[in-house]
Amino acid sequence: MAGNTIGKAFRLTSFGESHGVAIGGVVDGCPSNIPFDLPFIQAQLDRRSPGNSPFSSPRTEKDKIEVLSGIFEGKTTGAPIAFLIFNKDKKSEDYDSLRDIFRPSHADFSWFEKYGIRDHRGGGRSSARETAVRVAGGAIAQHILRKKKVDIQAYVDQIGPIHVQTPYHKLNLANTINSPLQCPDPGVTQKMTSYLKELASQGDTSGGAIVCVVRNLPSGLGEPVFDKLQADLAKAMMSLPAARGFEYGAGFTSATMKGTEHNDPFILRKEKITLAKNDSGGIQGGISVGSDIYFRVAFKPPASVSNKQQTVNCKKQPVEIQIKGRHDVCFVPRAVVVVESMCAMVMADHWLRAGIK
Amino acid sequence: MAGNTIGKAFRLTSFGESHGVAIGGVVDGCPSNIPFDLPFIQAQLDRRSPGNSPFSSPRTEKDKIEVLSGIFEGKTTGAPIAFLIFNKDKKSEDYDSLRDIFRPSHADFSWFEKYGIRDHRGGGRSSARETAVRVAGGAIAQHILRKKKVDIQAYVDQIGPIHVQTPYHKLNLANTINSPLQCPDPGVTQKMTSYLKELASQGDTSGGAIVCVVRNLPSGLGEPVFDKLQADLAKAMMSLPAARGFEYGAGFTSATMKGTEHNDPFILRKEKITLAKNDSGGIQGGISVGSDIYFRVAFKPPASVSNKQQTVNCKKQPVEIQIKGRHDVCFVPRAVVVVESMCAMVMADHWLRAGIK
Amino acid sequence: MAGNTIGKAFRLTSFGESHGVAIGGVVDGCPSNIPFDLPFIQAQLDRRSPGNSPFSSPRTEKDKIEVLSGIFEGKTTGAPIAFLIFNKDKKSEDYDSLRDIFRPSHADFSWFEKYGIRDHRGGGRSSARETAVRVAGGAIAQHILRKKKVDIQAYVDQIGPIHVQTPYHKLNLANTINSPLQCPDPGVTQKMTSYLKELASQGDTSGGAIVCVVRNLPSGLGEPVFDKLQADLAKAMMSLPAARGFEYGAGFTSATMKGTEHNDPFILRKEKITLAKNDSGGIQGGISVGSDIYFRVAFKPPASVSNKQQTVNCKKQPVEIQIKGRHDVCFVPRAVVVVESMCAMVMADHWLRAGIK
Amino acid sequence: MAGNTIGKAFRLTSFGESHGVAIGGVVDGCPSNIPFDLPFIQAQLDRRSPGNSPFSSPRTEKDKIEVLSGIFEGKTTGAPIAFLIFNKDKKSEDYDSLRDIFRPSHADFSWFEKYGIRDHRGGGRSSARETAVRVAGGAIAQHILRKKKVDIQAYVDQIGPIHVQTPYHKLNLANTINSPLQCPDPGVTQKMTSYLKELASQGDTSGGAIVCVVRNLPSGLGEPVFDKLQADLAKAMMSLPAARGFEYGAGFTSATMKGTEHNDPFILRKEKITLAKNDSGGIQGGISVGSDIYFRVAFKPPASVSNKQQTVNCKKQPVEIQIKGRHDVCFVPRAVVVVESMCAMVMADHWLRAGIK
Repeated sequence: MAGNTIGKAFRLTSFGESHGVAIGGVVDGCPSNIPFDLPFIQAQLDRRSPGNSPFSSPRTEKDKIEVLSGIFEGKTTGAPIAFLIFNKDKKSEDYDSLRDIFRPSHADFSWFEKYGIRDHRGGGRSSARETAVRVAGGAIAQHILRKKKVDIQAYVDQIGPIHVQTPYHKLNLANTINSPLQCPDPGVTQKMTSYLKELASQGDTSGGAIVCVVRNLPSGLGEPVFDKLQADLAKAMMSLPAARGFEYGAGFTSATMKGTEHNDPFILRKEKITLAKNDSGGIQGGISVGSDIYFRVAFKPPASVSNKQQTVNCKKQPVEIQIKGRHDVCFVPRAVVVVESMCAMVMADHWLRAGIK
Repeated sequence: MAGNTIGKAFRLTSFGESHGVAIGGVVDGCPSNIPFDLPFIQAQLDRRSPGNSPFSSPRTEKDKIEVLSGIFEGKTTGAPIAFLIFNKDKKSEDYDSLRDIFRPSHADFSWFEKYGIRDHRGGGRSSARETAVRVAGGAIAQHILRKKKVDIQAYVDQIGPIHVQTPYHKLNLANTINSPLQCPDPGVTQKMTSYLKELASQGDTSGGAIVCVVRNLPSGLGEPVFDKLQADLAKAMMSLPAARGFEYGAGFTSATMKGTEHNDPFILRKEKITLAKNDSGGIQGGISVGSDIYFRVAFKPPASVSNKQQTVNCKKQPVEIQIKGRHDVCFVPRAVVVVESMCAMVMADHWLRAGIK
Repeated sequence: MAGNTIGKAFRLTSFGESHGVAIGGVVDGCPSNIPFDLPFIQAQLDRRSPGNSPFSSPRTEKDKIEVLSGIFEGKTTGAPIAFLIFNKDKKSEDYDSLRDIFRPSHADFSWFEKYGIRDHRGGGRSSARETAVRVAGGAIAQHILRKKKVDIQAYVDQIGPIHVQTPYHKLNLANTINSPLQCPDPGVTQKMTSYLKELASQGDTSGGAIVCVVRNLPSGLGEPVFDKLQADLAKAMMSLPAARGFEYGAGFTSATMKGTEHNDPFILRKEKITLAKNDSGGIQGGISVGSDIYFRVAFKPPASVSNKQQTVNCKKQPVEIQIKGRHDVCFVPRAVVVVESMCAMVMADHWLRAGIK
Repeated sequence: MAGNTIGKAFRLTSFGESHGVAIGGVVDGCPSNIPFDLPFIQAQLDRRSPGNSPFSSPRTEKDKIEVLSGIFEGKTTGAPIAFLIFNKDKKSEDYDSLRDIFRPSHADFSWFEKYGIRDHRGGGRSSARETAVRVAGGAIAQHILRKKKVDIQAYVDQIGPIHVQTPYHKLNLANTINSPLQCPDPGVTQKMTSYLKELASQGDTSGGAIVCVVRNLPSGLGEPVFDKLQADLAKAMMSLPAARGFEYGAGFTSATMKGTEHNDPFILRKEKITLAKNDSGGIQGGISVGSDIYFRVAFKPPASVSNKQQTVNCKKQPVEIQIKGRHDVCFVPRAVVVVESMCAMVMADHWLRAGIK
């Protein structure tokens, strides 16, 4: 019961190591007869690509997708859609000195404990490179959702101590895609840029947070009691490398609130029943209400800092290491499209589970 | 693909409505030949019982468990363990006036949208009463874990604006079980009590947060890449009624941190490799390290406040309601054992998936 | 990863031992708003009941079903439907002498090897009594299928050396239900009766075979490549106690055929594309064609014969046993409704998986 | 809930169309640290290859496997093992005339009914070419089983009317691999050869049957009540293209038997409890006994005969077709390794589910 598949009706199986031949995935459960939009999938992958953000790893690899199956004459056939992204610009020799050393705050030690073997080259299977497969899977999931104009947009809400102060519904989210840091607020972007420049000069890294909003989602998605929509969203987000927290609606703030503050009257708007303020984040009792869904994900800073660090090697000897290779100062901007993609897969899964046509 | 089963190797299937004949569950996957500790299961249920906390619903029902299968001569047989908790002290007539009305911030509307039918009596299947089944499931899961002395303890960390300030490892968690609010810090408990008394007098309710700690867990639990230990924990916690946020290790704080601050050197302690400070919350790359696992869950306030509220009925007419029945001022103290139970089921599931004997 | 749940969209989880408190099940995935037909479910259970057939165990227990959840005001709610059948007429003392002995051709030895513990009373969980749960599950599955008049009928095709010679489409299947042996051919029934009387007088038992026919099933059910309709049918049937073979369409005979004989021209009938002769048994490439589905299941004779037998006990000593208790001469007539029920669950599962409304 | 994945602990996800870029699969759940035997996997694929048998399709393609992930320095890492087999020698133009025509006894019509779209080139996803993926999956599964010398051998037992008369335990199964028809009995092989030559000259095809034997399997594999070992075997076998029947142990013959004939005394052999004659086929109550497991699978003749056939096209017009392309007279010899492979995957799955180390 390994864990490389996500979803029940819309399923992505992921494979591949950072410095292996290729990474890739198989999507099973995509309905037939949907026009296949390969340029869109490639564009989503490009958003995640290193080199696309000023503070990300200078590994220049274009993540070019190759689709192997499930498409005929430009349409999905209902058969599994398998795809590959070959690994080209890998420099495994950067990692040779790490062969027997457990890097702090990486997966090296725990994975070795589990498997008794370790592909040390670039983190192997534990590398964040596997999130490219999630982006491809999410872009395929979007094929199902956009037939009904479901709209999923994430953005950088926080980098280190710098926060967007405006709530999502007062931001112009269309700004996000053109921001080098994927932050829709230009003033905040500037401050974040200065902060990251400083960290870069110190060889240090930063954590951050992403907000994601789903619009136009119909009511009725989600399955009580264990597969609640927020439960599956939380799992999807917390399965991302470096994710440390998830909240939706009023989130952790709701712990401080009174019922009379938090409660959300139902009102009529254009003869439709809806929520007056949506502190519930668009989900009640685990099922979508038909209002905006919004949630927030916190990420820890990248572990690959450039200063010397104390650690231990396989022989249980203390050692000092200094990590080489090409690394991100902050991967949160690149993670925006990954968060959107995981969200799209959860929504497509529950869409199909609900039997929406 | 309904969602009433959780787990892959250790599986709980849950059923039952708040005002139906009974609620109950079936545990499949419990190994054979384990001495069955029914008094422990009952004691766990008693911790969740209404009436066990000064600020919970005065519904006095004892949740007495009856086990139907899977046990022979005091031991588990490897067959499914089915159990029931009959519903006795239900007052369905309290809910008659709500038959056609959608209560604010309850599951009434979204569930009606999904199913086109609604059992309005006490929330039906959406009632938090179903968490009793989770407690029984978790108590059975503990049978597997305690063979190796894995220890799971949760406690109330926050009620409304009042917080425990001390980190978990400096608290005496043994205090928790005797605290009326399940909070191990007596000074904080007192403040929380005053706060809740005031809210009770106003007919209002409060949110809160729970911290949970897992000790003595071996390394190697968790499955990359989607079924990471924290991902399954997050799903389990966010499937709880009223949960709004989940974080582990440094959690949302890690978003503000630098890599050099957050990184966690490996050190040797009694010839064992371990973490110097454990900001990772005991999990790296989705797999347990062998250190303490700790996480925090935020809950919104109960929706059943006693003041008048605006809402809408099934005929899309605005109406005013005032909720009767017996309700909690704050269910967070009762949720402590529920959080422990969900945690135990996730750990037992990954225990069996890892093939630990 | 125990195996007490069947189905993906329509799921039955089964529990209970022959001489425990009760047997029962939980159906998850039944759509909401279907009128619930409890008398039909009870009637199906009655067809399986011991005492309903002249050559079955004289255990007189009425398998009275009690439904605990998932129904509100006579309709399904979409919540899990849990049900119980209490064990009343059990005589566990009949089994005391077998406590440490492995009965030949029962599950005693292999289960003890697996679990290291054994509920010897009436076979415990391995008793064919658990098929009552399948019948209840199948009767609930029929609620979905009969909305579109899908018709499932099984009958006894063979007992020992005595066979029905007429193909199913030339038989009057309406005769089955009133036949004491569930065989629609009166002449064959008479011969079977004589045969079984003779065996009964010798304390011996007989195997047999059942044919099952599904009519009015739409095309498009089944999932390539592993969850083909016939694959899931085969699994369902071969999971029945004592089943030893499964074939559909021309079955084992097709091994002897040439392509020119077996091939099945498509023809037009009432402007509908259909099969000229249906040697394919209504399934091609794993997916229903829209023609009749028919298959055949072989069962071995009951192992509980009354003569003395050689075997071995837990201490690895050879012993001689003579089995007491109340046993069937031939359970194939009682298995007819069980085969129909398993078939109904497979069809309902694929019905929901195909998203048929 | 598409059906392209098989297994719970050892899982194969399959993808690819006959005339697409490639077919391939992903194995998830293979334990780490097993030496990877690529030559063995390739050798198994070669056994299935067209051109390896005198009566199979002259498509000469070597099914060369390329492994993309999950292996490091010659050992499994516990990560998913993805592999590809590129499609090289495809002649899609042979199929152009069939674009709008439903070939009799192929999957064309039922798949079109399900998906509303059809890749007509070589059967697309419904082609038996996908069984190459199963062979690779099975060869990987063998890596787990052969650590404890579990031995799986299948052979051709029947082609058309010609049968092997000797039971498996009196045959020299080592002959199978060198027989052009994968039949261990040289005399029978000769008769089968003559029969197939005659059919080939007529452009006709033949069905057949395969027997498979599993030796050295430990007791305790299989999960009651739905995932019995024989149930999962039956599903695996009946998911093969053209399979029409499955039986194990005494199989359909047991329907004719009396209990006193069929019952299988337990005896002691070398201080081990075992079965005197094993009519149970090595499985009792769904769980392996520790004796040989044996079963038999029937296959219909290939549908691609060379004579003219009546059928219908997409526009519901009757048409006459004559199938071109390169086809098998009898694929049963090539299916021998496929049967072994499916069996290996079922055994490895239950091996891991049972937690055997």
